[in-house]
Amino acid sequence: MIKFALFGAGFIGNVHGRNIAAHPKAQLSYVFDVNQHSAQALASSLGAAVAHSPEEIWNSNVDAVLIASSTNTHADLLEAAIRAGKPVFCEKPIDLNIERVKGVVQLAQDHPVPILVGFSRRFDANHLGVLEAVRSETIGKLEILHLTSRGPTPPPISYVKVSGGQLRDQTIHFFDLACWIAGEAPLEVYASGAALVDPAIGEAGDVDTSLVILKMPSGAFVHIDSSRRTGYGYDERIEAFGSQGLVESQRKPTGEVVLYKGQQKTSNGLHAGWFERMEPTFMLALDAFVCSLEGQTSPYPNLLDGLQAQLIAEAAAQSLQTNRPVKVEYWLPSTPALS
Amino acid sequence: MIKFALFGAGFIGNVHGRNIAAHPKAQLSYVFDVNQHSAQALASSLGAAVAHSPEEIWNSNVDAVLIASSTNTHADLLEAAIRAGKPVFCEKPIDLNIERVKGVVQLAQDHPVPILVGFSRRFDANHLGVLEAVRSETIGKLEILHLTSRGPTPPPISYVKVSGGQLRDQTIHFFDLACWIAGEAPLEVYASGAALVDPAIGEAGDVDTSLVILKMPSGAFVHIDSSRRTGYGYDERIEAFGSQGLVESQRKPTGEVVLYKGQQKTSNGLHAGWFERMEPTFMLALDAFVCSLEGQTSPYPNLLDGLQAQLIAEAAAQSLQTNRPVKVEYWLPSTPALS
Amino acid sequence: MIKFALFGAGFIGNVHGRNIAAHPKAQLSYVFDVNQHSAQALASSLGAAVAHSPEEIWNSNVDAVLIASSTNTHADLLEAAIRAGKPVFCEKPIDLNIERVKGVVQLAQDHPVPILVGFSRRFDANHLGVLEAVRSETIGKLEILHLTSRGPTPPPISYVKVSGGQLRDQTIHFFDLACWIAGEAPLEVYASGAALVDPAIGEAGDVDTSLVILKMPSGAFVHIDSSRRTGYGYDERIEAFGSQGLVESQRKPTGEVVLYKGQQKTSNGLHAGWFERMEPTFMLALDAFVCSLEGQTSPYPNLLDGLQAQLIAEAAAQSLQTNRPVKVEYWLPSTPALS
Amino acid sequence: MIKFALFGAGFIGNVHGRNIAAHPKAQLSYVFDVNQHSAQALASSLGAAVAHSPEEIWNSNVDAVLIASSTNTHADLLEAAIRAGKPVFCEKPIDLNIERVKGVVQLAQDHPVPILVGFSRRFDANHLGVLEAVRSETIGKLEILHLTSRGPTPPPISYVKVSGGQLRDQTIHFFDLACWIAGEAPLEVYASGAALVDPAIGEAGDVDTSLVILKMPSGAFVHIDSSRRTGYGYDERIEAFGSQGLVESQRKPTGEVVLYKGQQKTSNGLHAGWFERMEPTFMLALDAFVCSLEGQTSPYPNLLDGLQAQLIAEAAAQSLQTNRPVKVEYWLPSTPALS
Repeated sequence: MIKFALFGAGFIGNVHGRNIAAHPKAQLSYVFDVNQHSAQALASSLGAAVAHSPEEIWNSNVDAVLIASSTNTHADLLEAAIRAGKPVFCEKPIDLNIERVKGVVQLAQDHPVPILVGFSRRFDANHLGVLEAVRSETIGKLEILHLTSRGPTPPPISYVKVSGGQLRDQTIHFFDLACWIAGEAPLEVYASGAALVDPAIGEAGDVDTSLVILKMPSGAFVHIDSSRRTGYGYDERIEAFGSQGLVESQRKPTGEVVLYKGQQKTSNGLHAGWFERMEPTFMLALDAFVCSLEGQTSPYPNLLDGLQAQLIAEAAAQSLQTNRPVKVEYWLPSTPALS
Repeated sequence: MIKFALFGAGFIGNVHGRNIAAHPKAQLSYVFDVNQHSAQALASSLGAAVAHSPEEIWNSNVDAVLIASSTNTHADLLEAAIRAGKPVFCEKPIDLNIERVKGVVQLAQDHPVPILVGFSRRFDANHLGVLEAVRSETIGKLEILHLTSRGPTPPPISYVKVSGGQLRDQTIHFFDLACWIAGEAPLEVYASGAALVDPAIGEAGDVDTSLVILKMPSGAFVHIDSSRRTGYGYDERIEAFGSQGLVESQRKPTGEVVLYKGQQKTSNGLHAGWFERMEPTFMLALDAFVCSLEGQTSPYPNLLDGLQAQLIAEAAAQSLQTNRPVKVEYWLPSTPALS
Repeated sequence: MIKFALFGAGFIGNVHGRNIAAHPKAQLSYVFDVNQHSAQALASSLGAAVAHSPEEIWNSNVDAVLIASSTNTHADLLEAAIRAGKPVFCEKPIDLNIERVKGVVQLAQDHPVPILVGFSRRFDANHLGVLEAVRSETIGKLEILHLTSRGPTPPPISYVKVSGGQLRDQTIHFFDLACWIAGEAPLEVYASGAALVDPAIGEAGDVDTSLVILKMPSGAFVHIDSSRRTGYGYDERIEAFGSQGLVESQRKPTGEVVLYKGQQKTSNGLHAGWFERMEPTFMLALDAFVCSLEGQTSPYPNLLDGLQAQLIAEAAAQSLQTNRPVKVEYWLPSTPALS
Repeated sequence: MIKFALFGAGFIGNVHGRNIAAHPKAQLSYVFDVNQHSAQALASSLGAAVAHSPEEIWNSNVDAVLIASSTNTHADLLEAAIRAGKPVFCEKPIDLNIERVKGVVQLAQDHPVPILVGFSRRFDANHLGVLEAVRSETIGKLEILHLTSRGPTPPPISYVKVSGGQLRDQTIHFFDLACWIAGEAPLEVYASGAALVDPAIGEAGDVDTSLVILKMPSGAFVHIDSSRRTGYGYDERIEAFGSQGLVESQRKPTGEVVLYKGQQKTSNGLHAGWFERMEPTFMLALDAFVCSLEGQTSPYPNLLDGLQAQLIAEAAAQSLQTNRPVKVEYWLPSTPALS
């Protein structure tokens, strides 16, 4: 039984907290949130205690922590967890400042603990089907990977301003998926984008519609299109084209009710939002983390995956600004000199 | 090059006439119709001659005849063709009087010529896919066969009155398909039906909506539902359930245009009528007949298939009247005694 | 908060027990099972107490009971619950002896308590979509209703012998669905069937493959095909054909992974079994029951629905034996004379 | 009745010749091909005469010409046709030398005759469905247009060398479709590509796999991916994403036969090649041309559309070489000064 402390009792903290409570091998011991009221409400509904400070958690007997607090607290909490030797399940991103991210990665290199970075889409059953068909070369050698990322409504402008922009906030999940499926990371990125949905997003210096091309070391190409607004719910898809076939993670309908009337066939559309579509992946990600802590082989996205996706997003953001293809500059933590 | 004479220059006669003219190995020599004007219009547009009497055709050098005239002329023309030794492509049914049909079959037994009976649905590519999966036992042993036969609008009451009724006129095609796919003919039939679409059809002594269950010698069951009216175009389907799998000839959409908007997905519906859906089968049936006349192995529904479907329809009609399962009484022509 | 006692700690008892524990407005207080070991295991994992006798439950402060014990205990427990004034969620069937069922219904008439009979398929989201389209007359007036009920593997012969037969055990769910969707109950039933899957089922006096036609008072027809074995998982579907359109609850695939290779498209098939497909309906049924107890309008299948489906199954079983259409004999409890 | 002369009796010449012969309002008078044998074979099978020189055609009474000869003859024949005042249906491209194309366009400006350039995909029923949904703003304002162009096998290297390259030979059809659907032409193009299919294509200076992004004046983005080889037949699709919805011209399956077996659903894949998929568009394009000559309003791609697509292809080819976005340089013929 893995005892967890949870940082963050907002929307996504609630999701994680309930999942921990429901997981047969996990237990929620503490909840911390700067908003004590939220922490209390969540903790009491799940039979957990409220922690009054992070220190209370670092000094406790919890086996692991789950960081679901606001982005600007991730790096500090990660560093504290690493220092306390506590395994971490951390929502993405690590930090919007890429130098800060490198610092965390270096610390984790020097003081290793298991760290899962919350790219939970890797646990979607349909996306896993694509991964398996690509990795097993059922479709031969991967040549074109096309990912679609379209959410129903743009976030509030206040969020847009602190989000790092569409490429760092939304498309980053698909940079991770692309590398995970292709089994390699891009050499070069070209990004185009514009504020077509809401001029206020443009005034905030961001885009809401973007197309990105990645060139992979194997020669494969990746294309990702992202939009902040659809008129038809949440649309996420992956299409992998290889030398011998094609595999897709297609749209998931909300049901299988079909009406024929007149000259039309009408059927169920898509989920209202990303959460309705992706909800099951959160428990699956938690399960992978727990199983791994219990000694099973159970792959999950780690801190280096988190860093990698952020470095790709940096190059993409630079390409967007300069309208030129940009090479991705990777970085690895230094290993200690042998004495 | 097979030289054809065509009886009937109505709607379906026009279809057959144009197909003969377009077939690379066939040629339309004569057209006959009691309506000389129709015959003339069709013949001249296709470079054929008008025959002024059936006799002109029987005495001509045509290699084959295609009978697409009204139902009450089929038996006479078939007999004349048999006596003249001309191969025949004959639209179904042979005759509404079953004793008359037996007479034609006996004559054909005594004076054999190739005769194709126009169960053209056997040439539909999707239905052929079902046939192959059943016959190859890809789905194991056939256990349940479900056929759907629903046309968009009922025929005029004047036609209903002379049609022999829904089971003999509409469902008969599916009795044939069922036997063709199953590779056997039913022992017993149970039919239910009512005039739900139009009371005038009921007043004419017919039904417009019917469900029929056939029990096959192998133990397999067949279910056929037929309706004279839909609110969504022409709906014809076959589902074959076997011990190891299921194969379907599904609905054929009119296109692949898909719209996502709001919470719905909208796509193309079905064809306006049976002809739009089944049109390609007429040329394929003709081609099978022509290829067969030219010596190739090219299976097609023959006179005994036509008789068999009519005998099943007779039993079904009797079941409908009595509300009891009815055994099908088959009949075979006598072969001459050896001297 | 509704306090529940659970009868039965087998497979389906476990499902219900966990659902009660997870429901925000319900609480599992007691578990009873003749197998004390099973009761103990389930109770302790969910924080409930073990009851050592049914009486302990009738005398307790529980607000409701859930009967998920073996079929032959249902009637006794229902009667005891009615006498104790406890609302009941009871798995189907009420009893295999129809006179016994009538006794329970009469008792409930005289001493009313809320009783849900576990036709949980009514809570399937896709089936609900069909219900809504039929009831709102989106498809016009219902004319043909076609239901498919095919499970992957036959039950053990020992179960077949005590199950009442395929029509009373499997098809009964679809008798209920048909009445629920059509908003009426059949006048007459015709059933055909055979033991095509396993001769031992035939030797046990049952069938494993059956086709049933129901004639409804409105003139609509219902067709239900049932099989005890498929080569492709669990296949349950509903198709409602009306005067103005068609609505279907189609097959639910296990995923949306599509592979194109060579001349084929391959995609996800069906669920392994009925439980994998229908699992969400159990919680939805429980929720309807709980909401109803808390005073909300929340329709669910009741004791009369359970009786009605059993009476239809009786007629169907008689039709199967006699190979004749059989009229359904309905029965209603007597109401007390006004004094 | 429009009398046609046909230039070219190769594969596509045969297609056009047969369509002209089958069209009720057209008639094939002459066939010319430098290979007299091919010309003779086609002409005699269709009841047309062989022309022994192009001059014979320009001096004849034909109403229109159809140019389906090899690419390097298009410009000369177009110019001759313009000078002879004969309407032209010309296969694309006009000429691989863009200056030569401009010369033809200028000549046509000075001596107008109806000219259809063979972008026959505009006549595909599914693509037309997308056009209508975009132009009617059913999907709101167009924001992302994604086109997929993947053929089953690369052309021979000998063809690759004279084709102008993948972007000018294959992707050009999709430059045209993109402009046609969007109702505007791109400002800027970025292209990425590689020879992933066959290194010999790379050695010939071409690519076989490419991704192109177009930026449109309205702000909309277009993405086109092209491959010269698939393991699953011919794959052509269009997806139009707008502010209020999404419309797609999806893959067209070769049939509707579906097999369920084990855990898989298997169904028909795609057409063997572009011709099998696109065949109906050739007759539809011819019909539009004929109807237009007969005075009906019947839009078709004209010489300026042909020029426009070629100019976009030029910019794309330059982008591919330089790995930089390239602005498209449009050109219009000069109109004569008013005197």
